Amino acid sequence: MQTYKAPLRDMRFVLHELIDAGQLAKLPGFEEATPDMVDSVLEEGAKLCEEVLLPLNRSGDEHGCTYENGVVRTPPGFKEAYKTFVEGGWLAVSATPDHGGQGLPELLSFVFDEMVCATNLGFGVCPLLSKGAMALLETHGSEQLKKLYLPRLADGRWSGTMCLTEPHCGTDLGLIKTKALPTDRGTYRVSGTKIFISAGEHDMSENIVHLVLAKLPNAPSGTRGISLFLVPKLMPKADGAPGARNGVTCSGIEKKMGIHASATCVLNFEDAEGWLVGEPHGGLRVMFTMMNAARLGVGLQGLGIGEIAYQSAVAYAKERRQGRALAGATEPAQPADPIIVHPDVRRMLLTQRALNEGARALGYLVALNIDLARRHPDADKRLECDEFVQLMTPIVKAFFTDCGSLAANLAVQIHGGHGYIREHGMEQLVRDSRIPQIYEGTNGIQALDLVGRKLGQNYGRLLRRFFHPAEAFVADNKDVAGMAEFIEPLAKGLERLRNATLSLAGRAMADPEEAGAAATDYLKLFALVSVGYMWARMAKVALEKRGEADAFYDTKLKTARFYFSRLMPETGSLFATVMGSKKSLMEMTADEF
Amino acid sequence: MQTYKAPLRDMRFVLHELIDAGQLAKLPGFEEATPDMVDSVLEEGAKLCEEVLLPLNRSGDEHGCTYENGVVRTPPGFKEAYKTFVEGGWLAVSATPDHGGQGLPELLSFVFDEMVCATNLGFGVCPLLSKGAMALLETHGSEQLKKLYLPRLADGRWSGTMCLTEPHCGTDLGLIKTKALPTDRGTYRVSGTKIFISAGEHDMSENIVHLVLAKLPNAPSGTRGISLFLVPKLMPKADGAPGARNGVTCSGIEKKMGIHASATCVLNFEDAEGWLVGEPHGGLRVMFTMMNAARLGVGLQGLGIGEIAYQSAVAYAKERRQGRALAGATEPAQPADPIIVHPDVRRMLLTQRALNEGARALGYLVALNIDLARRHPDADKRLECDEFVQLMTPIVKAFFTDCGSLAANLAVQIHGGHGYIREHGMEQLVRDSRIPQIYEGTNGIQALDLVGRKLGQNYGRLLRRFFHPAEAFVADNKDVAGMAEFIEPLAKGLERLRNATLSLAGRAMADPEEAGAAATDYLKLFALVSVGYMWARMAKVALEKRGEADAFYDTKLKTARFYFSRLMPETGSLFATVMGSKKSLMEMTADEF
Repeated sequence: MQTYKAPLRDMRFVLHELIDAGQLAKLPGFEEATPDMVDSVLEEGAKLCEEVLLPLNRSGDEHGCTYENGVVRTPPGFKEAYKTFVEGGWLAVSATPDHGGQGLPELLSFVFDEMVCATNLGFGVCPLLSKGAMALLETHGSEQLKKLYLPRLADGRWSGTMCLTEPHCGTDLGLIKTKALPTDRGTYRVSGTKIFISAGEHDMSENIVHLVLAKLPNAPSGTRGISLFLVPKLMPKADGAPGARNGVTCSGIEKKMGIHASATCVLNFEDAEGWLVGEPHGGLRVMFTMMNAARLGVGLQGLGIGEIAYQSAVAYAKERRQGRALAGATEPAQPADPIIVHPDVRRMLLTQRALNEGARALGYLVALNIDLARRHPDADKRLECDEFVQLMTPIVKAFFTDCGSLAANLAVQIHGGHGYIREHGMEQLVRDSRIPQIYEGTNGIQALDLVGRKLGQNYGRLLRRFFHPAEAFVADNKDVAGMAEFIEPLAKGLERLRNATLSLAGRAMADPEEAGAAATDYLKLFALVSVGYMWARMAKVALEKRGEADAFYDTKLKTARFYFSRLMPETGSLFATVMGSKKSLMEMTADEF
Repeated sequence: MQTYKAPLRDMRFVLHELIDAGQLAKLPGFEEATPDMVDSVLEEGAKLCEEVLLPLNRSGDEHGCTYENGVVRTPPGFKEAYKTFVEGGWLAVSATPDHGGQGLPELLSFVFDEMVCATNLGFGVCPLLSKGAMALLETHGSEQLKKLYLPRLADGRWSGTMCLTEPHCGTDLGLIKTKALPTDRGTYRVSGTKIFISAGEHDMSENIVHLVLAKLPNAPSGTRGISLFLVPKLMPKADGAPGARNGVTCSGIEKKMGIHASATCVLNFEDAEGWLVGEPHGGLRVMFTMMNAARLGVGLQGLGIGEIAYQSAVAYAKERRQGRALAGATEPAQPADPIIVHPDVRRMLLTQRALNEGARALGYLVALNIDLARRHPDADKRLECDEFVQLMTPIVKAFFTDCGSLAANLAVQIHGGHGYIREHGMEQLVRDSRIPQIYEGTNGIQALDLVGRKLGQNYGRLLRRFFHPAEAFVADNKDVAGMAEFIEPLAKGLERLRNATLSLAGRAMADPEEAGAAATDYLKLFALVSVGYMWARMAKVALEKRGEADAFYDTKLKTARFYFSRLMPETGSLFATVMGSKKSLMEMTADEF
């Protein structure tokens, strides 16, 4: 059975004991975001996710969305859940208060989103897109567009989409065929077919705001000729109320592996009226505002699925009895021991747990840096924080989603045959967790972003945002009592990562295919070391606080030990493959495959 | 799109150039199994799988089996396909000619089964079980049972099942509650509920033969008190024709993640008449005849899915155009290059390919040893071959199925968003490939079988069946021109495996939890080294034959290079975790999870 209680204790540990989220309350505009206030918001959010979203997760998967004559209906209960969700203000936690948002830190929104993704990934897609659309319009929209659209997105009356993909192009947006022709009213007529549009049509909001990539007449070819347009489903009337239908229709929804509660739409734009956002031909850069936020949000989907997978597997492992502990029966009065006694079951549970808690720590640190990058009074500090976020975005997106999928598969495995049966809900987690590895740029694309874009940027300056604090932490703590078992493997991992980085940077300069050949393994190496850095930091806090009333800190130390002894060693083999050459990938001709 | 042509060239390479399958034709009873005859049987089999089974794979998934009032209907077309299948004699390729089988080598049946699993896993489940039932009855059935049941199983009029699992017990069969009471006619009345019974009820055969584990009155507790009964669905009349209904009914089928074309049944036995097979209380040992064959068959499911996943992904990667080769456009006249130019796409394709071809070589070697173990004139040789099969069975089952699932997931990833959509058929491969990792003993159970049972058996004698030939191969070839790049990493892997084995054997003696904690990683280490051994042997053949007309041998060498440079390095990190202790798994109390 899908089992989930928001891990509030662990969330608070990261926020207050590890990354000092309280520092945000000292920044202008965030005065209200005190630890107490943050905690009470999260408690409310947890209640919503546990009581409203979780009960709809299985039924949403079974019913799925339906399509009929251009109309998409979400599964039973979703409209009501959406209403509760938006009335609670959850859509606009971190949106600007100038236009109806709550103006709280992104970090808080991030933590809440983890719970949403854990309890109902299909439901969470629509709010994620609305948040992305608000972020994009806040940064790049005209005052007129902001005033009209932001308040309606913030309160959920309207929802947002990202319309990028076309049948012949996904990753390679330079191939886009959708056209936009200027009208004499300063608007544009957008025509073309977009596919894979999440929440492109549904019945939860009264209007939908499409953000569409298209090409102006005589646009330069490739990605430099793409512009971005806001295209509402229903044309706003003078008073802002939704009016006549615009020229965009949904011609079908996809039958997919998972996230059945989220409609994946084919949208046909036929002379749909749209408004330019940003500069002509500058659409891709603008869309990347939304895309980068979305990539972090997708990373959270992986973390959320990882957490519900872990909790569900633990519940089953404590309840299901098969066989006896290898060291002798733990419950001899019962016909068998619970399977949590078996080392291999524990290996699977601890893999889920150590990855979840490590990813949570890293993810929240990234979110903290988003807020610091926006609000810190010192411009240098803002830049540094932004660079850290840029560096970590592909890692959060790719590694967290790979871990989410792994955790879901481990949950199935722990359930054995029962995991394969739909009613237990574990196989749904596998199906739902598979898409975050793909959308918003496949994980292979994330790896190329890391090695091709982030690695060399400003002569490796982004890298220093990770290496400096991590190496300083190692230097400061290598002689601290009790820290050796964490610092030694971390230092080894950092050395591998540093050497791999130097080698790769050198080789990539001469031959970009060398970077491409190593990219995926390099990203995973980077991720394991980054998460290892967070685990060492968590171990330090736990060492200092252990002995306090609850077992939390002791458990944290045990999980840290598992991470370093069982998961960190993979950095050795990843280092070996990153240091290899592209030859074994590239020497085969296409015909030989 | 699901794309599959039986890889006959590679199959022949393994059979005739690598493992000398021709030696079987010298064994008594296998005189007909000459290379030419083997090839023509496989060509016929390939045609059947490509033309009859593959076209039903997607539709079988979409329709699934239906249940109504105790009746199970297979998807449209399956009855007809089954008829074609059994009329071609494909069910009984290796069954004894004394009772209607073709008496051909198990190896040949194995190769054919790979094709069946590749093209329609759901369809293949039923024949797999019938084959297992025949193998069990051939070895353990009374003459009377053999005479009545074997010919009807061999020609497919009747099909077989394995009835082990009950709602409260899967892995731990000692907990079985199903009862068997003796009648005054020498038969038994079987009562109880069995779940997860594949092909437990369906409309393809006129009768179903259930092999059921149950307990006799006053049976010893645990696994030593289990007996095995043959329970027909319809009672055979005096002339053998199916007669009145026996006391077994199907009360429902499961809704599952995948293999929708295979009915997974709940069977209720109520005073069903059954016949004892083997000795009273000796049922588990007898069932393991079927189980061991089934585990190898499940390994083939992994390999089959791996192959169709690879071929489908290659087809897509050659056709889909996105972006440009990093080294410069390969097809500048087209708007974009095919994605097979990208190193990361090649990494995924080559991972699938190198694992498939390596697993194929190892799997066929195991099957060859099954035949040698049965038919070789020298008793010592027979024992040796049987020990090799015993050692390799958990590796084939667990590693091949893990690789199949990995390959299916890589096929989805290469397809990007299109891989997530049902119509392309890639996500079906992921769903179908997930169950082989679970049934016939989860892969964690396989690992325990390897370390707990196979490792220490006869003071490690089973291990020598792998280590001796592998180490001799290294010694013989380390100075052979061109072999260094394969022999060096193999030798390193062997050394790791040997050291890990010694350490584990020592630690396990003192503390079985140490073995349990390392089991899964140890099995993977063993598998990577075993497959590495096969790759080095394949490289040797290819080195000797390269320069011949086709590019086959050059391609084989390139794939071997990929295996050793990109996949074999994982033995390093697996060695590290196997050498670690159980502490990080066992120190946490159950409450702390």
